[in-house]
Amino acid sequence: MAASILSKIEELAKSRNVPCKAVLVGSAARNTWLSGDHDMDIFIAMPEDQDLGLALEIARLVAPHHEEKYAEHAYVHATLDCFEIDLVPCYQVKDASRIKSAVDRTPFHNEYITARVRGLEDEVLLLKQFMKGIGVYGSELRVGGFSGYLVELLVISFGSFPGVLRSAENWRPNEVIFAPESSQIWRDLFHEDPLVVIDPVDPKRNVAAALTLDRMFQFVAAARCFLKQPSLDFFFPAAFLPLSDEEVLGHMERRKSALIVIELPVPHLSEDILFPQLRKAEHSIAALFELHGFDVLRSDALLSGGSGFREDDDRASGFLEAGPGSCQSAGSGDEGIARLLFELEVWELSSVKRHPGPPVWEAEHVERFLSRHIETISGPYIQGGRAVVEISRRYTEPRGLLEREMVKLALGKHIRQQVEKGYRIYLGQEILQIRDLEFRSFLARYFLQHNHLKQLQ
Amino acid sequence: MAASILSKIEELAKSRNVPCKAVLVGSAARNTWLSGDHDMDIFIAMPEDQDLGLALEIARLVAPHHEEKYAEHAYVHATLDCFEIDLVPCYQVKDASRIKSAVDRTPFHNEYITARVRGLEDEVLLLKQFMKGIGVYGSELRVGGFSGYLVELLVISFGSFPGVLRSAENWRPNEVIFAPESSQIWRDLFHEDPLVVIDPVDPKRNVAAALTLDRMFQFVAAARCFLKQPSLDFFFPAAFLPLSDEEVLGHMERRKSALIVIELPVPHLSEDILFPQLRKAEHSIAALFELHGFDVLRSDALLSGGSGFREDDDRASGFLEAGPGSCQSAGSGDEGIARLLFELEVWELSSVKRHPGPPVWEAEHVERFLSRHIETISGPYIQGGRAVVEISRRYTEPRGLLEREMVKLALGKHIRQQVEKGYRIYLGQEILQIRDLEFRSFLARYFLQHNHLKQLQ
Repeated sequence: MAASILSKIEELAKSRNVPCKAVLVGSAARNTWLSGDHDMDIFIAMPEDQDLGLALEIARLVAPHHEEKYAEHAYVHATLDCFEIDLVPCYQVKDASRIKSAVDRTPFHNEYITARVRGLEDEVLLLKQFMKGIGVYGSELRVGGFSGYLVELLVISFGSFPGVLRSAENWRPNEVIFAPESSQIWRDLFHEDPLVVIDPVDPKRNVAAALTLDRMFQFVAAARCFLKQPSLDFFFPAAFLPLSDEEVLGHMERRKSALIVIELPVPHLSEDILFPQLRKAEHSIAALFELHGFDVLRSDALLSGGSGFREDDDRASGFLEAGPGSCQSAGSGDEGIARLLFELEVWELSSVKRHPGPPVWEAEHVERFLSRHIETISGPYIQGGRAVVEISRRYTEPRGLLEREMVKLALGKHIRQQVEKGYRIYLGQEILQIRDLEFRSFLARYFLQHNHLKQLQ
Repeated sequence: MAASILSKIEELAKSRNVPCKAVLVGSAARNTWLSGDHDMDIFIAMPEDQDLGLALEIARLVAPHHEEKYAEHAYVHATLDCFEIDLVPCYQVKDASRIKSAVDRTPFHNEYITARVRGLEDEVLLLKQFMKGIGVYGSELRVGGFSGYLVELLVISFGSFPGVLRSAENWRPNEVIFAPESSQIWRDLFHEDPLVVIDPVDPKRNVAAALTLDRMFQFVAAARCFLKQPSLDFFFPAAFLPLSDEEVLGHMERRKSALIVIELPVPHLSEDILFPQLRKAEHSIAALFELHGFDVLRSDALLSGGSGFREDDDRASGFLEAGPGSCQSAGSGDEGIARLLFELEVWELSSVKRHPGPPVWEAEHVERFLSRHIETISGPYIQGGRAVVEISRRYTEPRGLLEREMVKLALGKHIRQQVEKGYRIYLGQEILQIRDLEFRSFLARYFLQHNHLKQLQ
């Protein structure tokens, strides 16, 4: 498959006198390709003094039914024989420190790994599937996990799959791995990153920059559990089956909390654009609840339907893909549905709330504070040396709060547009009206929400 | 009145050959006596080498119907012609640094003030009545306000009633007044006291040690308000009238909070013993609520009936005493009633609660944490790098919590005994069953709970 595309590119280049080279990169090039994956990356590398547009033109001809995407430069995405193929123009630079854009670095990664991974391919595959099983594989924003390249570097660094796990057992935040010199330099340079893995082809870069603290320690916890009690479940966890109405009610009865779903249609856009906006909306709304006195127990977000995100949702839900035999369409281009789930501790708050002001000895602040709070239910009085008033709460229940305040929030651009057009709020048992199976699986995962820490109990 | 008691003491001393001297001390001795007061302190001073028991014997004979009380030493308390009289044996020491017990210091205070207060008596009376009106007069534990001696020192220090107010406007926590040397020494010595007023007869002592931060700044705030807009209301505030059922319901409707009263009988003991225990119980129970997830908006305590505390309750409630004409019995010796009022934000909490554990990188702590939480509703999962479980809340409503947990708390000794014998809980509208007028006035004060800060609005 890859070979035929590569030769087609070279044929086209020859006939049009374009001095480019086609390279298969990524896991497909290095035999570290998970059997569930259908991605193939082919880079079309041009000399530095040439126009990338010529390479893009060739890419378009290779796959007549394609869609053009855009990262730092335009590239072509196509589905050929069940494979998702990216055809990416890039520059052939002399060394990785002179790259013109991030994609130019990829051939260097390919070269570095290819030269060192031989004999370790199975270890890489084990680690990838392990990470996939526990939900930490993938560097896209929604997952915030480990990239394929990072996995390969870890295996090369620690020699084997169990070698990586044994190392991970003792990781701490801001762990530095693969540092060519003293760790402290890199720790200072990347002091906000939970894991620092210096890119061997470009030492100014942290390969693990996209990894979040929680994904990192989900891996650490799973490593500990697996070493203590190995099991195939880590690689192939049981799926979360969609909950029936009775099961949902059972969970609600056991939790006696205030469950709220906000549902809105979202436009046909790639998950890497939509999901960060959805998370931003989730965090803004959670902060809104807290600001108004509603303690948020937990929240989560789900993107369903539409194109671009199905594959990754499955991964996050703990589902594994159906395998290379079943080829699904990546999406119809329809709108998708975004759902935000919030769990509050209570449905209703007191009308009165305490509002502490400045210390009494700051006379001017006190005067200003008091002049802003003429209408009080109780007070002003003095407590802990501060002026305190008790005033009316603006919202005592969540629906009113959402209906009036949500539109004022910093939501992502596309989420905001939808919220302005219309959305729907489900409170408590109204959530049963959502009959979508993907959502019911998401609820199952939400309610249990355990990972392999369970096995340390 | 005082003169006749003094001569009676000297007569008795002479006839029994006891070498004591009777001294009228306190405000009665210095014409700084508020018209509502009925207290008179007479000290029976013995030479240092004599037995205080002889002086006590004389005190007993002066007032045949008396009760014996005990501070550092025994003394006699009696009601004579509507006056509350304390007859206190003490030692005549050479100077105040050589005192044997706190009461021996009083004659020195008396001497110091008497020599300096002449011409300032009206200023002292104004300041005392002002403080009484705003609820900060009295150094007993329950009030935590300004003692009579402290008021006199302030007036002597700042020259007049308005002089004290103008100074107070700028007071800050740990303010030092009347320091014979550099303030810093005293600030270091009394660094935890909100106000430091060095005792001129004993510089190791802070006269304002009993003053709380809140009473101090209640005075500061009132001083500012009074100087801005003087009014007789500061001296003679309107009483809080007992609320009718409709008024109580109106306040409840406006607040929509969870109001709870715990009622228990208390033994016949002095307020200075009982009230601190009651406050301790109040704080322990408030902490219990918070520990179990119930946010406490505010709480308060009231001692009613019985002997010993009626006078001070009136003072705190903003009531002024009826004046010297009406003489009430100080109490029948019956049991009194203590009531603790708690206002929570909600009546009911979710069954599920988040319980965060240690960071995942502390492997041993995590194992211990997980082994303590086998039964979870959700989790364990990782959030913010920590292991988190969601577990069942033990109490989702306040009655069960109080009934099971209150007896285990650190309550004062006498409160604890009563709680073990039996108490009563009133929730929400059940509070209307309490028809006691003093309690209804207390509720009025609780619901409004404003002080003169109001006038700065």
